[in-house]
Amino acid sequence: MYTEQFLPEIELRKSKIQESLRMTKADAILINDNANLFYTSGRVFSGYTYVSARGEIYFFVRRPVGLKGDNVIYIRKPEDIPSEMQKHGIPLPEKLLLEDDSLTYNERLRLSAIFPNAAISNGTPLIRNVRTLKTPYELKLIRESGTKHAMMYHRIPMTYKEGMSDTEFSIELERLARLHGSLGIFRIFGSSMEIYMGSLIAGDNADVPSPYDFAMGGAGNSTSLPVGSSGMLIRPGMTVMVDMGGNFTGYMSDMTRVFSLGEIPELALNAHQVALNIEKTIAGKAKPGVAAKDLYNLAVEMAEQAGLSEYFMGHRQQAGFIGHGIGIEINERPVLAPRSKDILQENMVFALEPKFVIPHVGAVGVENTFIVTRNGVEKVTNCTEEIVSLD
Amino acid sequence: MYTEQFLPEIELRKSKIQESLRMTKADAILINDNANLFYTSGRVFSGYTYVSARGEIYFFVRRPVGLKGDNVIYIRKPEDIPSEMQKHGIPLPEKLLLEDDSLTYNERLRLSAIFPNAAISNGTPLIRNVRTLKTPYELKLIRESGTKHAMMYHRIPMTYKEGMSDTEFSIELERLARLHGSLGIFRIFGSSMEIYMGSLIAGDNADVPSPYDFAMGGAGNSTSLPVGSSGMLIRPGMTVMVDMGGNFTGYMSDMTRVFSLGEIPELALNAHQVALNIEKTIAGKAKPGVAAKDLYNLAVEMAEQAGLSEYFMGHRQQAGFIGHGIGIEINERPVLAPRSKDILQENMVFALEPKFVIPHVGAVGVENTFIVTRNGVEKVTNCTEEIVSLD
Repeated sequence: MYTEQFLPEIELRKSKIQESLRMTKADAILINDNANLFYTSGRVFSGYTYVSARGEIYFFVRRPVGLKGDNVIYIRKPEDIPSEMQKHGIPLPEKLLLEDDSLTYNERLRLSAIFPNAAISNGTPLIRNVRTLKTPYELKLIRESGTKHAMMYHRIPMTYKEGMSDTEFSIELERLARLHGSLGIFRIFGSSMEIYMGSLIAGDNADVPSPYDFAMGGAGNSTSLPVGSSGMLIRPGMTVMVDMGGNFTGYMSDMTRVFSLGEIPELALNAHQVALNIEKTIAGKAKPGVAAKDLYNLAVEMAEQAGLSEYFMGHRQQAGFIGHGIGIEINERPVLAPRSKDILQENMVFALEPKFVIPHVGAVGVENTFIVTRNGVEKVTNCTEEIVSLD
Repeated sequence: MYTEQFLPEIELRKSKIQESLRMTKADAILINDNANLFYTSGRVFSGYTYVSARGEIYFFVRRPVGLKGDNVIYIRKPEDIPSEMQKHGIPLPEKLLLEDDSLTYNERLRLSAIFPNAAISNGTPLIRNVRTLKTPYELKLIRESGTKHAMMYHRIPMTYKEGMSDTEFSIELERLARLHGSLGIFRIFGSSMEIYMGSLIAGDNADVPSPYDFAMGGAGNSTSLPVGSSGMLIRPGMTVMVDMGGNFTGYMSDMTRVFSLGEIPELALNAHQVALNIEKTIAGKAKPGVAAKDLYNLAVEMAEQAGLSEYFMGHRQQAGFIGHGIGIEINERPVLAPRSKDILQENMVFALEPKFVIPHVGAVGVENTFIVTRNGVEKVTNCTEEIVSLD
């Protein structure tokens, strides 16, 4: 299942989950979501991780064949789990948590029927909560993703060629990201958000509202995936915002930079500086104990003082957040939004993305990934933040 | 919401759904899944499609702003739906279908609480069933995807450069697919299967079992996404199987071809011919009225007669199907598997993929997408099926 080297990390994660289980007086959590399987075992497999409040961690595996380990138990179907538990002397849970926010309704009914005597409640908040505070090993992977991400972004201007459409430019950047080690997919919590690698939006395409809960929109190339680049020619006077995912390690970094062609109007240049100032100010205030909503409010206030509210986080459609937790998935906690109850803690990781959409010009702003440290934050996506000319 | 031109198509799909609703004596179905939103409206949006057995089709939209249409009703949250229905004179349903196989447990509870007086049952089989029989317009899009897919595959040998790793080759083919119009993502029904664009597997990497329910495996580049290419050098004596998704239109085609470097052992060459023969034989038998499981059994029998059972559909781990329905998603009905109850009908679309994994050589075989016609099948992915040398 995992190498001996990885065992202490698994033990650490197990003990974090167990502590939470004991606090909620639950006996165990049964995990099926890919992000949570990866978290608890270090790999994706088809099956279930079972963590009990006081025992071992077990992996009930359907596929692939050939996984090794004392705690690996092969099953054909989830209904095999209780008898395998009895065979291995694992007590059946009386209070069991299931992932009610990712299991489908029918999957959840099927799993709960397997444990007819257990009281079942929602385990999604618990496991997502545990994942919010990253381990030193996870922070190492996020720093590594950030470094590769920044190396890739450094090469963006060299990748542009005159006469490219936004989609053509995006395709070359997708390739660049993959050559730097990006795994391509990034994981999104919830089923309604879809995207390919990330988004590149130029000119007025930035002002096309999308159905997804991403900070920025774009028409996309198809009504089947209406987000991001739309096949339009990149022309002088436009900004090009690149917000491509950095899943280089199974852990994500998030990063946005802005490029330009020709002369950019003063309003957009000014808005970009305001965004940089917001980013710097928020990053300067962020530290353990600070409320995420206060950071959001501060950003909104600064945009307002600059007279740029109507463009902040979108124009025709505005996003209701300026930052989001990040890790195995792109949308973890903390959420930097007006009604967020999250308080920053050491070892949280979040992306901060103050952006403006300027009609007829494009999007400006910046996004970086930050680790919350004991006294402040550490930026993991280091690369120039000024608008870089593609000319 | 959609153009006037698209209205007859929406009407046709609506009437297909309504007919099924009346057959199951349901009053309405409320749709939230992206694939089904796309099917019912022609675009992805954040919100819900409501189809009643005898009335209009309505779109309850959260995002994006600005969608137009008589039947577009903006809501802030799903709880707004009943009052909006009353406002628009839409009777509340007594028997309502919800997507129990794609809504999460908590989403399903939330939606059913909105209709406290309705009897709720599972609408997923109904809508997937309707989607199984494609409309002429959908068939047109699938043919278009198949044509672009084949054009892209035609260029695969020219894209290879000596000394490439499997991942490097895959990255260039991903770019090639995107330049031919691929949207990148492809939709998979169910939450457990993840992949980036498709898979390229060379040599013994073909024999590494994956956790996913795809026909072929591969170690992948990360335990976070253990499928497909693994970063190994492509060396003489290896086959390279390319199975990259063809989502060029919102509708998928599926296609696999095999390439080789240097001399390939007789066993593999022979197995490839057997695969081609299976493909041809099955395609020759497939027509309306034929049971999908009979086609599966025939394929298994032919592999056995050739003495190649141990390599068929995998070696260390074998897939339990030889084909799958395809459309908006990669895994629709019919399923060509031993326990399938599907009977082929005109306007079904399926991918047929007899493959063998030969240890120390790689995977061989073929995959094409077929439309079931009145008397047989029509192949939409036309491109040479012999093993093509990369030398």
